[in-house]
Amino acid sequence: MGRVAGGDRAVAADFGRRVRAERKRIGLSQEGLAARAGIHRTFVGRVERGEANVTLTTIVRLADVFGVDPGALVAGFRGTK
Amino acid sequence: MGRVAGGDRAVAADFGRRVRAERKRIGLSQEGLAARAGIHRTFVGRVERGEANVTLTTIVRLADVFGVDPGALVAGFRGTK
Repeated sequence: MGRVAGGDRAVAADFGRRVRAERKRIGLSQEGLAARAGIHRTFVGRVERGEANVTLTTIVRLADVFGVDPGALVAGFRGTK
Repeated sequence: MGRVAGGDRAVAADFGRRVRAERKRIGLSQEGLAARAGIHRTFVGRVERGEANVTLTTIVRLADVFGVDPGALVAGFRGTK
């Protein structure tokens, strides 16, 4: 999993907020989400705090757990060139 | 950038095909896409061959170059649990 460089931090922070909102919507703890998505519990915390540059397969796994299309988790994001 | 594990290869392969199709749609070479997206030329090749597990920020940068929403590049993907 990549660390987040300065310019990309806004995207990671927005993604983290979406993950937290979806997790709460379906009533899971961070541990619960980690177990279902097959990722480490501490990594869920890093993602939600916008500290992680998640990979495509993690996006898809999270979307599966939330029962949403992966596109919905990344829609509207703009690069920071 | 993460390597692609067995189960996630289908997602990476589909994503690669979408990147190649979008690149050709806008008439760029792999070098041209790499330069505009700020990623390495050889990495574009790995992505298109489905050998790379791209990060969120790379997805967003590629979408920017293609002039599409990042959601469109990952819509419809399903996890492989």
